[in-house]
Amino acid sequence: MPEKVIPDIVVGRLPIYLRSLQRMLAENRHVTSSQEMGERLGISAAQIRKDLSQFGEFGKQGTGYSIDYLADQIRKILNVDRVWEMAVVGAGDIGSAVARYQGFANRGMQVAMIFDNDPQKIGTRVGDFTVQDTAQIEDAIREAEIRVAMIATPSRGAQEVADQLTKAGVRAILNYAPIHLTVPENVRVQYIDPVIHLQRMTYYL
Amino acid sequence: MPEKVIPDIVVGRLPIYLRSLQRMLAENRHVTSSQEMGERLGISAAQIRKDLSQFGEFGKQGTGYSIDYLADQIRKILNVDRVWEMAVVGAGDIGSAVARYQGFANRGMQVAMIFDNDPQKIGTRVGDFTVQDTAQIEDAIREAEIRVAMIATPSRGAQEVADQLTKAGVRAILNYAPIHLTVPENVRVQYIDPVIHLQRMTYYL
Repeated sequence: MPEKVIPDIVVGRLPIYLRSLQRMLAENRHVTSSQEMGERLGISAAQIRKDLSQFGEFGKQGTGYSIDYLADQIRKILNVDRVWEMAVVGAGDIGSAVARYQGFANRGMQVAMIFDNDPQKIGTRVGDFTVQDTAQIEDAIREAEIRVAMIATPSRGAQEVADQLTKAGVRAILNYAPIHLTVPENVRVQYIDPVIHLQRMTYYL
Repeated sequence: MPEKVIPDIVVGRLPIYLRSLQRMLAENRHVTSSQEMGERLGISAAQIRKDLSQFGEFGKQGTGYSIDYLADQIRKILNVDRVWEMAVVGAGDIGSAVARYQGFANRGMQVAMIFDNDPQKIGTRVGDFTVQDTAQIEDAIREAEIRVAMIATPSRGAQEVADQLTKAGVRAILNYAPIHLTVPENVRVQYIDPVIHLQRMTYYL
């Protein structure tokens, strides 16, 4: 039987559900419902039930979801029941903030190395890391078998960095440079550009 | 005649089109087509034409779009043919990076003030700004008539900050804290959480 293809928009909501469940666990909660999750997230309970049902049966009608169990299952689905090492390219304000960010722990991610092409930055410390020369990207990433990377360079250099990363085996790129990247078909890119989000809101003001 | 309601997903693509057009202008280009835009953005030309047609007629069949004119029109639609002053709450790594970010200029946004509740940070300089006490949020924002804000605090304080901001008149919040915010109906929130984007990609790895 061919594997069912889940719409990417549904996949995109799972991390939001997981974050909410992890927050409930931190509040010492053990059972929740699609209603409660929906109220917390501003998503309808029906949508949440429908999304989750694409992946299996996670709760019984009337008794709700075990938070621990559902969180575990979503972690497995998203492949974050392990820790992904990540490379950060660009040791400017954003790259440094990301490299020092404490919020990756327990969410399946961990920064493993950071690169820059500025001789003044190469060799300096950012959080727990020594900034490496971007000339080393391919060798370092290939050796560490890294599959996930973040680009936090200026727009100008971002495409070249993406080319190096994908050549070295990276398959998922989070791009902070405000430019669209062209990558091979087997590589995923997600974009973070605050202005894009802001302009989407000023439309309504 | 009632005003046509444009789907938010279409509104959300306009800033991406605008960014691409501004990049072409920086390359000294003057005319483009939905085909070229589509190739640059990984969006179909038909989708781009359909999206733009929701707002009017911006080009002639066969002659393409005047980049200058189309960019101007999209700026007007998104209300970024003016500059929005923004408040940043949280002067940690991310808040500071945002306050120093040079990429807002010419995209309709400008940081105007930054707040933190840490006595060690209040009064210090971040980029061009002096960090103000979060106790001043409501007065300062009301006086400056600020409508757009960014929250870059830890999760714990984010909802309280959102309450203060909306009480003071903020109508658009970009939230970097990894938590869902509850706001009045006339307030928009957009979220930036790198882990949400990363987990959406690890699903496919």
